[in-house]
Formats: sequence, structure tokens, C-alpha cells
Amino acid sequence: MKSSNVFYLVYGLTLLLGIICIVIVIAWNTWYRGGFAWDGTANMFNWHPLCMVSWFVLYGNAILVYRLPFTWSSSKMILKLVHATLNLAALTLAVFGLLAAFGFHNKMHIPNLYSIHSWVGFAAVILFSLQWLLGFLSFLLSCVPHWLRAAYKDVHEFFGICILAMTIAACLSGINEKLIFVLNSANSSIPYMKLPPEAYVANVLGVILLCFFLTVAWMLYKREWKRPTPYTLALGDSSEPLLSEN
Amino acid sequence: MKSSNVFYLVYGLTLLLGIICIVIVIAWNTWYRGGFAWDGTANMFNWHPLCMVSWFVLYGNAILVYRLPFTWSSSKMILKLVHATLNLAALTLAVFGLLAAFGFHNKMHIPNLYSIHSWVGFAAVILFSLQWLLGFLSFLLSCVPHWLRAAYKDVHEFFGICILAMTIAACLSGINEKLIFVLNSANSSIPYMKLPPEAYVANVLGVILLCFFLTVAWMLYKREWKRPTPYTLALGDSSEPLLSEN
Repeated sequence: MKSSNVFYLVYGLTLLLGIICIVIVIAWNTWYRGGFAWDGTANMFNWHPLCMVSWFVLYGNAILVYRLPFTWSSSKMILKLVHATLNLAALTLAVFGLLAAFGFHNKMHIPNLYSIHSWVGFAAVILFSLQWLLGFLSFLLSCVPHWLRAAYKDVHEFFGICILAMTIAACLSGINEKLIFVLNSANSSIPYMKLPPEAYVANVLGVILLCFFLTVAWMLYKREWKRPTPYTLALGDSSEPLLSEN
Repeated sequence: MKSSNVFYLVYGLTLLLGIICIVIVIAWNTWYRGGFAWDGTANMFNWHPLCMVSWFVLYGNAILVYRLPFTWSSSKMILKLVHATLNLAALTLAVFGLLAAFGFHNKMHIPNLYSIHSWVGFAAVILFSLQWLLGFLSFLLSCVPHWLRAAYKDVHEFFGICILAMTIAACLSGINEKLIFVLNSANSSIPYMKLPPEAYVANVLGVILLCFFLTVAWMLYKREWKRPTPYTLALGDSSEPLLSEN
């Protein structure tokens, strides 16, 4: 089978897994957690997993923009703008996800940022914001010298996948934490260890999030699926200012 | 600074972080969790975090064997044997870590493998075992055709880092779960949300494990730190049977 056909098969699978994740996180919080509101109650907290899972899925897709073979004939600048816009939308979701958790905690007099889940998740959002800002300054505006931009490209790509790994760790520990809190509480008839239907739904969400991460990572890892760049433009990817074309 | 000097600086940092992780996990379980035993009690469970953290650290170091510049003049076969031996030791630790958790659960009539932490952690151990077995059959014994070995090398390297990412996710969710269980129980005077000293110790362990993961990932990511292979031996890495030399 042609390499680009295999790519589109894996890409199609990734899109499907991402959509399934968002559907499951909505279903979980609607069926079992009382739905969504913005009022400081547990229903406000329910925006937290939805926004964070959506951030993760959108972020994964934003990374893959450069891998899509049909975009290789387009201007590199358009791809950069699409990548930056998708990641800005993803960052907005992450910020709303944090606000939902903080709003609920503050109303319920629960301290913020005490668990290792929250430490890693919060660090991922901060690093993601920095990554976006430095990417914008380096690759869209010409605010830094060429040699620094070229050196930063490596770091940008590395942290792109590492922050995604931090986000999956935060998602999985968050699902674990939420299920322990709600299923092992006095209000729950079946504890987490007895695997009630809600536990299955949320555990399966974790597994599909992990599969999504693995397919994204695989598409990034395969050298033959990288956007081809002419040898003479070896530094071009990292050194184009906003108003230039590839 | 010379690239190999930078490598050794980062490598030294990685070694240090790995040692600190093992020291902290021992200190945590000795000072706050009553130490170690093999009797089905909570003290038996304490081997679980120690073995799993040690697995993770040894596994990270086993991956890096090929990156060490002083080994590049050695026979590739010796490196393969060192890599396989370290990973076999790591796998043994992982199996003991599972046995410690299962032994405690069985004695306490707690079901095994119900949380997303356990699903991801168990999947990581199973994949790691498969990875070891397939690596042994492909790269040390000549049990599979050359073309399959060459194709599998990509998959082996990819899963090498992905299973490490799954392991860090399992470690972080495991620390989170353990702290919720022990600090939010009736026996604890200060809940997790008030960050008692034990919570700080274990959260910091999570942060240092994450830093270890990032330094290992960075050393794997840097192309100039890869073991140089002569062009004529492009397929050599993946196609040497047990009794051949580089």
C-alpha cells in the first residue's frame, strides 16, 4: 500500500479516536455527573474534563497539520497560521478547563493545585502557553535572530510531543482521581473497585485517549511522513518571518 | 561547548534524577508507610511503588546505552547484550511490583486491575514484555527475516519511548491514587488537600520522575547524539544475529 494511503488510514483513525474521546467525556458528565453549568457547583467542575480532553484532542490535531500530504503544495505560511490558530483555540479550552476547576474549588473551599495530577496538568498548560508564545514570536514574527530560531525549532518540536505526553498523564491521573472521589464517596452505591458502568465508561475514555496519543506520536515519528523541505531551504521552516512565503 | 560534553552533562543529570527518584520512593515508604515486608499487608504493597519506580529508572537507562559516546567504539553486540540484560532486570522489577500489588489486594480482598492507573500500568508491563521478547528474537537471535527485522526496528524504537511515556503516566496516577487513599482515609490527620509533608514528598517524587522522563526523551530526540552507523551498515543495527559482530 502507498505510504500516503497508510498515512491517511492512521490519520482517519486518529480523527475518529479524537471524536470518540469528546463524545465519551460529554456522555460521562451528562449521564453520570449531572451535566454542565457555570455556577460553582460540581456541574461547573464537569467543564474541566470536557475542556481538557478537547484541548488534548485539538492540540494533537494541530501538531499534525504539517504532516498532511495534501497541504504540502500549500504555502508554509498558511500552515503556520492554521497550526497557531488551532493551538490558540486549544489554549483557550485549557484556560476554560482551569477556570472550571478553580471556580468549583473556590466555591467549595477546596484548595487549588495540591495533587500531583494538578501539578502536572498545570505545568502542561503553562508550558503550552510558553510554547505558543515563543512559537509565535519565532516562526510567525521575526523577533529573534535566525540562528536562535533554527535552534529553537528543535526545542519547539521536542516540547510539542513532550507537553502532549504530560497532558495524557494529567488526563489519566485526572480520570483516576475523579472516579475515586465520586465512586468511593458516601453518595455512591457501587465503589470504583466494583467497576460500576460509570467506571467502565471513564476508564475506556482513558484507554482511547492513550490510543489517540499513540497514533499522533506514530505519525510524528515516521520520517517518511514528514513534510518534505528542499535542501536549500533547510533552515526555511524556522526562519520565515510573518510576511514571507515558503 | 562540545556536543559530547553537553551530552555527558545531561546524562549525568539523568543519572542523578534517577537516583533521587529511588531514594525518595524508599524514604516515602519507610518514613510514612511503615517500610517493607512480603506478608500481604500494606507493607507488602510498599514494594509496588519502589519496584515500579526502579523499573522506570532502569528502563530509561537501558534505552540510553546506545547513546553513550564511549561505547561507540565497542562491539554493537555487547551493547545489545547490555541493553537486553538491563531491560530483563527492569522487567523482573516490574513483575515483582505487580506481585506486590496483587498479593496485597488478594489478602485484603480488593479486586485487581479496576482503576485506569492499573489498566495503563498493566498494559505498559505487558507491552514491555512483548517488546523485550520481540527484540530478543529479532536483534539477538536471527529468528525473523531481514526485511521484517529492519521494519521492526522502527516499531521497537517507537514503542521504547511510548511505553516509557505510559509508565510515567502510570507512576503519576499511582502516586495520586495512593496519596488520596492514605491521606483522605479516617486514619490520616491531615488530608491530601492540606498538603502534609508526605504529600509534598510524593508529589516531588512525581515531578522528578517527569524530569527524568524529559531528559531521557531529550537524549533520544537529539539526532547528533545517536550512535553513528556506517552507511554501508544501514541495515546492520537490526539484522545482526546473536553470533555476529558489528
